[in-house]
Formats: sequence, C-alpha cells, structure tokens
Amino acid sequence: MKKKAAVCLLSGGMDSCVATAVALGEGYSIHALTFDYGQIHEKEIACAIKLAKDFSVEEHRIIDLRLIGLFESALTGGEVIPENRTLKEIKEQTEIPGTYVPARNTVFLSLALAYAETRCADAIYIGSHAVDYSGYPDCRPEYFKKFQELIDLATKKTVEGGEIEIRTPLLYNGKAEIVKKGVELGVDFSHTWSCYKGQGKACGRCDSCILRLNGFKEAGLTDPIEYEI
Amino acid sequence: MKKKAAVCLLSGGMDSCVATAVALGEGYSIHALTFDYGQIHEKEIACAIKLAKDFSVEEHRIIDLRLIGLFESALTGGEVIPENRTLKEIKEQTEIPGTYVPARNTVFLSLALAYAETRCADAIYIGSHAVDYSGYPDCRPEYFKKFQELIDLATKKTVEGGEIEIRTPLLYNGKAEIVKKGVELGVDFSHTWSCYKGQGKACGRCDSCILRLNGFKEAGLTDPIEYEI
Repeated sequence: MKKKAAVCLLSGGMDSCVATAVALGEGYSIHALTFDYGQIHEKEIACAIKLAKDFSVEEHRIIDLRLIGLFESALTGGEVIPENRTLKEIKEQTEIPGTYVPARNTVFLSLALAYAETRCADAIYIGSHAVDYSGYPDCRPEYFKKFQELIDLATKKTVEGGEIEIRTPLLYNGKAEIVKKGVELGVDFSHTWSCYKGQGKACGRCDSCILRLNGFKEAGLTDPIEYEI
Repeated sequence: MKKKAAVCLLSGGMDSCVATAVALGEGYSIHALTFDYGQIHEKEIACAIKLAKDFSVEEHRIIDLRLIGLFESALTGGEVIPENRTLKEIKEQTEIPGTYVPARNTVFLSLALAYAETRCADAIYIGSHAVDYSGYPDCRPEYFKKFQELIDLATKKTVEGGEIEIRTPLLYNGKAEIVKKGVELGVDFSHTWSCYKGQGKACGRCDSCILRLNGFKEAGLTDPIEYEI
C-alpha cells in the first residue's frame, strides 16, 4: 500500500526537525519544504538539507522567497536582535518581538497548502509552539485552528471531501519536552541550528540560543552544537 | 493628510482592473500586486503593467511565482482548456473547473497580506466574483469571510487593533455589471486581457472569452479588444 504523504515545514531549526520526525514516526512519506526568506543565518538552510537527508524524505523543496522581497524584519537584517535577556524576560514579554516577520506563517502555510494539494498529501506538519516565546500572533492555537477552517473551504481536495490537516505536534510543548521528544525519535540535533546571529558557532546570547540552551539543560542533556560563549 | 493605502491584486484581467478602479475611487493610494504563476497568457501581465500606469499606482510589484514552481493546472499548461461551451454549460457546471489552481487565492491573499502589513495598508482589494463561473472554492463569499477571520488573528497590525480588510467589491456582480462599473469609473478595457489561450488576439472560444463577450453584450457595449472569431 502506498504510504500517506505529508508536507513538513523544515526550517533547519530544532522545532521543525522534531515535528518532521513525528510525521515520519506516524508513517508518512515526507515532502519537506524549506523557505529561504532572507534569514541572516544561512546555516539554518544548510541544516535543513542535512535533516532532509537524515529523514530520507521523498522530496525536498527549497523555496527562495527572497526573490519575492515582501518580507522586512529583524530576521532579514532590518532590526537589532536582542541579546543577553534572561529567560524570565523572554518568556514574560508581552509585546510582539522585533523578530516578527509580517504574515510569515500565513505565507508558509499557504504555500505548503498548494504543495500539499499537488502532492495529494493529507497533512501539513509545522513545528510551532505556543509555550516558550509565544509573542508571535501566528504561532497561537487559535491561529492554527482558524487556518484549518480556511483550508476546509479553500481547496478542491477539501471541498470534495478530502482532508488536508494542519498538525502542530509541538504546540503545547516547552523546549525541554521538544528536546526529549527529539531524542526519543532519534534526531541528530547537531544537524539543527537555532541562533539568530548565525556565525561559525551559535552566539549563545540571542533569545533563540537562550531558550535552546535552557531546553537542553532542563532535559538533562547537552546540546551537541558549539557556542561562542 | 497622507492617503490611506490599499494593496490591489491586479492580474491584468477585467475584474481585478475594475476592483482596483473601485479602490482608487474610494480614495486609496494603490500598491498593485501582480503574480506571474506561469499563466500561459503573458499578455495578461503586459496588461497589468499598462493598467498600473493608467491608475498612477504608488508602487507595482510583479511577483514571479514560477520560481516557486508549486502550481500545476490548466493555466500553467498542464490540462486542456475547454472551448465553445455555451453560457449555460459554463454557468451551470457543478464540478470545479480544470482551470483550478491549487490554493491560488490563499497564496495570493497571504502574500498580499505580508505586503499590506509592510506598507501599513488598511485594505486588500481582490476582483473575485461568485456569480458567473462560481466553481472555484476560493472565490466564494464564505471563503473570503474565513480569510478575514484569519487575518484578524494573524498579523501584528490586526492583533494590536489595526485593520487589514479584504474588500471584494465585485463579489455579487455578474460580468455585465462589472463592465458597467468599469465604464463608470473610466477604465480602459482595451488594457485588459481575459482569454485563457492568449495568442495575438483573444480566441473568443474559451470560457473566459465567452463570459467576457456576453458581459459586454448584456451591458449593451462593445468589447474594445480584438477577437479571432
């Protein structure tokens, strides 16, 4: 019997890596989708390529959204990335972070939806979570619920009774749980990259490094990647 | 006082042209967005460029989605385009047409949303209508209503109390009404293109030509473009 297919958003970060491992564990053949939207850390893309190989994906598409040029934010070089904040400061921020990218997940999920329909996929996996660092509007449970309602009205497949389900297997997990889940599923975290600054080694000072390091610490494990600090 | 800004999806067809004329008439400065997704009629793109000039838009972005390569359907050369159907056959079809493009409006609106947020726009105009040729799932009123609900949850601007409203000024209009509205607003229909086949002259036999010609006829007007037939 032909395996069910899933589109997995695979950024090269640890969350999307673990979400993809979950999809694989749930028996899907994987169509991985990586977006290059001018992140200032190209190392993430290099990691996505390694991970796609680790997961023996059916297909890996890297979409260069820089050509579209519609995104402007900290991650594309427009704003200063905060450093050395405490875990408390990061988790308790009430403002939407400067690293917000306009309509990012809406664009990503829409393109994943088009891809899923052309590949007769039943599911789209995305590694977002709403626990740590929940300041992004398009990472919240109600956002994904609404996007699912949109999908149910939006495509030939779904309108004709088929299913394309958004799966957010990490939505209610903290970083430590994500680390543990990844280890259980055998992921190689040395092939993931989280740092917003992205030099040879991870900076260890940006919010993303601080959350990642704390996740490994809380999980009682050592992060296999190298840090400047 | 600075004018309010709107993003207008401007395909080069007559519907998006009239929708943009409505936005202009409602006092917006226009950020026009044209998508090249491998339509087999490049004449449409050439028309979008003429129209952007006619409307003195603030900015015109042409996004080459062919580079993304996620779309496959009749309009990108994959399927035979029906010809010589009667108006009744076109209007009464119950199946989704072969010219359906996977998740097309969802992708277009998502990118328009990202663009709107970066330009502090309050509205997105799209020329879809649900009367003639209503077989597309992503042209129905309930689809646009749901996309609006998504927007209200999805962006920094809307979550912080700002507005980005999807406007579908032609949603309940037939082609004849669209023609009349366009004439009232002074649009130059010779700068629009509707034919799916797109040679030097419009074919006059595809569904799109048949609906357009009938629209002009019902409006008691002559279509200024040339036809093969």
